[in-house]
Amino acid sequence: MKIAVLPGDGIGPEIVAQAVKVLNALNIGLEMEHAPIGGAGYEAAGDPLPDATLALAKASDAVLLGAVGDWKYDKLERHLRPERGLLRIRKELNLFANLRPALLYPELASASTLKPEVVSGLDIMIVRELTGDIYFGQPRGISMLENGEREGINTMRYSESEIRRIGRVAFDIAMKRNKKVCSVDKANVLETTELWRQVMIELAKEYPEVELSHMYVDNAAMQLIRAPKQFDVMVTGNIFGDILSDEASMLTGSIGMLPSASLDANNKGMYEPSHGSAPDIAGKDVANPLATILSAAMMLRYTFNDEAHAVRIEDAVKKALAQGFRTADIWTEGTNKVGCAAMGDAVVAAL
Amino acid sequence: MKIAVLPGDGIGPEIVAQAVKVLNALNIGLEMEHAPIGGAGYEAAGDPLPDATLALAKASDAVLLGAVGDWKYDKLERHLRPERGLLRIRKELNLFANLRPALLYPELASASTLKPEVVSGLDIMIVRELTGDIYFGQPRGISMLENGEREGINTMRYSESEIRRIGRVAFDIAMKRNKKVCSVDKANVLETTELWRQVMIELAKEYPEVELSHMYVDNAAMQLIRAPKQFDVMVTGNIFGDILSDEASMLTGSIGMLPSASLDANNKGMYEPSHGSAPDIAGKDVANPLATILSAAMMLRYTFNDEAHAVRIEDAVKKALAQGFRTADIWTEGTNKVGCAAMGDAVVAAL
Ligand SMILES: [Mg+2]
Ligand SMILES: [Mg+2]
Repeated sequence: MKIAVLPGDGIGPEIVAQAVKVLNALNIGLEMEHAPIGGAGYEAAGDPLPDATLALAKASDAVLLGAVGDWKYDKLERHLRPERGLLRIRKELNLFANLRPALLYPELASASTLKPEVVSGLDIMIVRELTGDIYFGQPRGISMLENGEREGINTMRYSESEIRRIGRVAFDIAMKRNKKVCSVDKANVLETTELWRQVMIELAKEYPEVELSHMYVDNAAMQLIRAPKQFDVMVTGNIFGDILSDEASMLTGSIGMLPSASLDANNKGMYEPSHGSAPDIAGKDVANPLATILSAAMMLRYTFNDEAHAVRIEDAVKKALAQGFRTADIWTEGTNKVGCAAMGDAVVAAL
Repeated sequence: MKIAVLPGDGIGPEIVAQAVKVLNALNIGLEMEHAPIGGAGYEAAGDPLPDATLALAKASDAVLLGAVGDWKYDKLERHLRPERGLLRIRKELNLFANLRPALLYPELASASTLKPEVVSGLDIMIVRELTGDIYFGQPRGISMLENGEREGINTMRYSESEIRRIGRVAFDIAMKRNKKVCSVDKANVLETTELWRQVMIELAKEYPEVELSHMYVDNAAMQLIRAPKQFDVMVTGNIFGDILSDEASMLTGSIGMLPSASLDANNKGMYEPSHGSAPDIAGKDVANPLATILSAAMMLRYTFNDEAHAVRIEDAVKKALAQGFRTADIWTEGTNKVGCAAMGDAVVAAL
């Protein structure tokens, strides 16, 4: 089992180092090879996604990514910017399923702007389709109408097979969780999502143990605030998933804790924290490595099908929190403020 | 100044009666004429939007609506259902600008699932375009691809003039408020909203006193939870506005308090509470009339340009709350539970 380790920019190298430390401590024969991406790729090879990095990613079973981006690259031509490396690797690897958990540990409930009783213990998995929908649909663009004014158009578009494959990801994940899927659409207005709903209903027949429900996207945006713990797995298209996964992540109040995964059709995946590269605190050993460590746990679960070791990492994170260890971003009065490396050590010790 | 009063179904008649009582108490020469809509229209004339009701609405300067809908009409053919009356009157009157305030009185802050300090005093005005965007764009539908699978498509579409007229509504409102407009788009991905942003920037030149900012829709969904009080006027397209206005309303935790307005190009408008017809509590004198009373205040402000009397109603609502009057939906220990009519009386007394 081979992992391409792409630390990237900013705090990427230090947070990824902690996740690597945790994976090594499991001692389960993972082979890890490092390569540059983003600004680091540009520095090393003049390309935010160097050929050698892409080749390594393709030859590996999974990719562990830190984060890309730094203000110092803002003046580069668009195709040389760090973010392009990320977009290109996602596309090259056909990562169509984006998994965004919103999980709030009871110890961190006070970080949320919501009342603790509303969000404590929150554990939602948002499955977002990542390669279709209105973000990619043709025709698109700005054109001139006959009356001389401009008009912008974009096209929302989903085929049955695109819907079915992301649905399958959601149902499979639900089988590993609480067997509940809420499919989010706007089927009362948009035909594309009417088809979405039909395909989900058909697919549900293959998963008799899973309880499928449907919700309109505007109601989902409300329900995430009113009673977020009603949700387990949510599945939705690219644009709705973009909005709802960000909304759900903010419910936790601690983005430094949230991992993510992007999977292809064979469960090969890229795993990375939901947060960014935070160049302002890079190299200072103050970053929170837990989102990256939890991303490594997701890798074990979804790509390597190793639930036992995934849970072992997640339990170790919980234990480190219970023991009072906190990085600066999640520190509160009465807890023990530690640096990035020390947090990694605390998780290793708790394994 | 003539107002078409359309009470509708469920709690509609009793809440509208309180708003009418408040408007009459102002004694400013408003002529009001009642007509049936929704299920009441169907009962009276076999049509959820009887011709006479539409004619009255067209001949009036503004429409005050209660709510439509009752389970007993669920078995009617689609075109006879109460909701069709509402959709048709909006279309017939060309109401393209939907104004949805999210306002939280300090006395009611505990009703929110958010911490009181995060939402107390919240006062956002969301301006949503209501007649264009992907909800109406052509082409649309579900068709068969050559490979035998179905595909759904919908089209997001905005012309410059459509964007400019809704932008103008937002800037005009901002001039009556705190002179801040946040335009929400997804200009980094969707060309339609790239045009949206360009037009907003052009339009802002006509309003040098207004500070215009831009935010991506996914970030807006987050910021509404993280720090909702940063917003004053938000303006956005139909689908984003659908999602964000519902999300923002839920921040308050008391939908029984939220008015709304839908305006045409001449500020003729239809005013109605954001909540529904609640047939389960209809006729029991327990409904909350404040959203409807506040809708009447919006009517004075936006259609009759009578800021002074609008504020007088809003201040009277605040005073009634400060005096401890509460309908059942917003009642908490230690406050004075009153019925729908008594709440209307409390507002009249506080005028
Ligand atoms: Mg996003
Ligand atoms: Mg809605």
